[in-house]
Amino acid sequence: MANIRPVGDRVVVKPAAKEEVTKSGIVIPDTAKEKPQEGVVIAVGSGRLLDNGERAAIDVHEGDRVLFAKYGGTEFKLEGEEYLVLKESDILAIVG
Amino acid sequence: MANIRPVGDRVVVKPAAKEEVTKSGIVIPDTAKEKPQEGVVIAVGSGRLLDNGERAAIDVHEGDRVLFAKYGGTEFKLEGEEYLVLKESDILAIVG
Amino acid sequence: MANIRPVGDRVVVKPAAKEEVTKSGIVIPDTAKEKPQEGVVIAVGSGRLLDNGERAAIDVHEGDRVLFAKYGGTEFKLEGEEYLVLKESDILAIVG
Amino acid sequence: MANIRPVGDRVVVKPAAKEEVTKSGIVIPDTAKEKPQEGVVIAVGSGRLLDNGERAAIDVHEGDRVLFAKYGGTEFKLEGEEYLVLKESDILAIVG
Amino acid sequence: MANIRPVGDRVVVKPAAKEEVTKSGIVIPDTAKEKPQEGVVIAVGSGRLLDNGERAAIDVHEGDRVLFAKYGGTEFKLEGEEYLVLKESDILAIVG
Amino acid sequence: MANIRPVGDRVVVKPAAKEEVTKSGIVIPDTAKEKPQEGVVIAVGSGRLLDNGERAAIDVHEGDRVLFAKYGGTEFKLEGEEYLVLKESDILAIVG
Amino acid sequence: MANIRPVGDRVVVKPAAKEEVTKSGIVIPDTAKEKPQEGVVIAVGSGRLLDNGERAAIDVHEGDRVLFAKYGGTEFKLEGEEYLVLKESDILAIVG
Repeated sequence: MANIRPVGDRVVVKPAAKEEVTKSGIVIPDTAKEKPQEGVVIAVGSGRLLDNGERAAIDVHEGDRVLFAKYGGTEFKLEGEEYLVLKESDILAIVG
Repeated sequence: MANIRPVGDRVVVKPAAKEEVTKSGIVIPDTAKEKPQEGVVIAVGSGRLLDNGERAAIDVHEGDRVLFAKYGGTEFKLEGEEYLVLKESDILAIVG
Repeated sequence: MANIRPVGDRVVVKPAAKEEVTKSGIVIPDTAKEKPQEGVVIAVGSGRLLDNGERAAIDVHEGDRVLFAKYGGTEFKLEGEEYLVLKESDILAIVG
Repeated sequence: MANIRPVGDRVVVKPAAKEEVTKSGIVIPDTAKEKPQEGVVIAVGSGRLLDNGERAAIDVHEGDRVLFAKYGGTEFKLEGEEYLVLKESDILAIVG
Repeated sequence: MANIRPVGDRVVVKPAAKEEVTKSGIVIPDTAKEKPQEGVVIAVGSGRLLDNGERAAIDVHEGDRVLFAKYGGTEFKLEGEEYLVLKESDILAIVG
Repeated sequence: MANIRPVGDRVVVKPAAKEEVTKSGIVIPDTAKEKPQEGVVIAVGSGRLLDNGERAAIDVHEGDRVLFAKYGGTEFKLEGEEYLVLKESDILAIVG
Repeated sequence: MANIRPVGDRVVVKPAAKEEVTKSGIVIPDTAKEKPQEGVVIAVGSGRLLDNGERAAIDVHEGDRVLFAKYGGTEFKLEGEEYLVLKESDILAIVG
């Protein structure tokens, strides 16, 4: 894909297509109040800026299959594929 | 279960089925304003990021039977079982 | 009672039954905007997480008779008795 | 009075009765948006918890006659007398 | 006037009477959204509590003629004169 | 002009008259959601109070031509001229 | 262009004209809740003020092609061209 580098504590995720959801066995109930979504981490930023001026390494890595809160992310399309830019804090868990 | 690692200060909990609730003797009154729920900790994250860049170890451990505030958690299903991803601060107490 | 350990800056309190209220002589006026309540501390957590990663010891102890703001606490029942999980900051004063 | 020790950055104040208000000469206009009130400090807590784990001594003392913002305080009655538990930050000034 | 010592980061100001407003030449337009007011600093507190437990000296002094945001202050009357208790951050500028 | 010293992280700005706007070539579209405005810095305060008790020097200087967010500023008139007291954070950019 | 220096943690961006959007291949779906936009960084400020009084260098540079959240930026026109002043935190990713 074209080069994309998230800024700060942001992460780019490719949401799982429907057929992929079954790979990790995770099923999201339709009745869930805040519905999470599964995807794969494509790129991570340099991390949150700490009060001492350093950046804290992001706790997920390129290629991780993750569960994330869709709320708060920003969608965009690149070469016909859909992606999301999320904050690290929107990533709930690494699965698989 | 499939491998699941919560990110940061998050915890994965398996909510107690109804028959399990009686094990610790805890009963949640139906009239409670903010109704807590009982469950078992399945996995814990690496802990909250401190301002000095370190992570604070989470105060509950895998296998702990806990009382938690349902509000704020995110439900998901894995291999037919229901789980929740919670923030450490949603865990009220360890019981049993 | 069954073992219960509050997490972080939380405290478990047994609210005073009506006949106990008179022991310390405290009376809560019905007209009070934010009505406090009296009770006894049953268990305290490990304390609030500080930015340096340590925990600050909680300022009340097991057995203390306290005045607390009911708002914000979470009720539960254990072996037929009612309890509340509160944040340390919901405890207003130690009385008696 | 019965022993009462406020917790953390809280202060117990005995509101001035109407005839006492004139002692310091302070008059609160009825038209004031946020109406302050006069009273005497009965007891002070151990002070606000700082990020380094120490507590900052409270800036008022037992016996101080103070002007305070009534909003935010919690009323209670002890041996027939009315008191308020306030946060230190609700105390506006020491008078008299 | 009777002794009055503001607490923490608070300041007591005597609002300028109408004829005094012209002394510094400041005129407040009636159309201003957040209308400032002119007055004289009567007393200052010990300053804002810092995270290291020290207090930061207040940036205005007794006798300073100041422009302040009326919003947020608390009015009171002392020996027939009107005063306001303000937070240091409500003081916009020193004039004259 | 009469002496005016902003307090803390505040800045006094003289808004540009309409004919002056063209000097830097900046034009503010009428359709802009949050309409910025151009002006000249007249005076700057001692800077924001840091947690270590020092003050951070303000990033603009007397005489700077600036673009600022009008929202949040406080208007006043001095010797027939209109001025605004703004927070440093309301200054968007230095132009010209 | 005329000289423009953003203040603090702000960045000036020239939004991409429609024909430029295709250069990096990024397409923003019309259905996106919070629609991002593409542009080029024209100038960056001295960075966010840290609690120790230093400034943290901004994570994007002049000439970077960026994806940004339009919400929160301030539009202005300079020599007939449209620009935006954004906070560094409104920049989502560097692309291209």
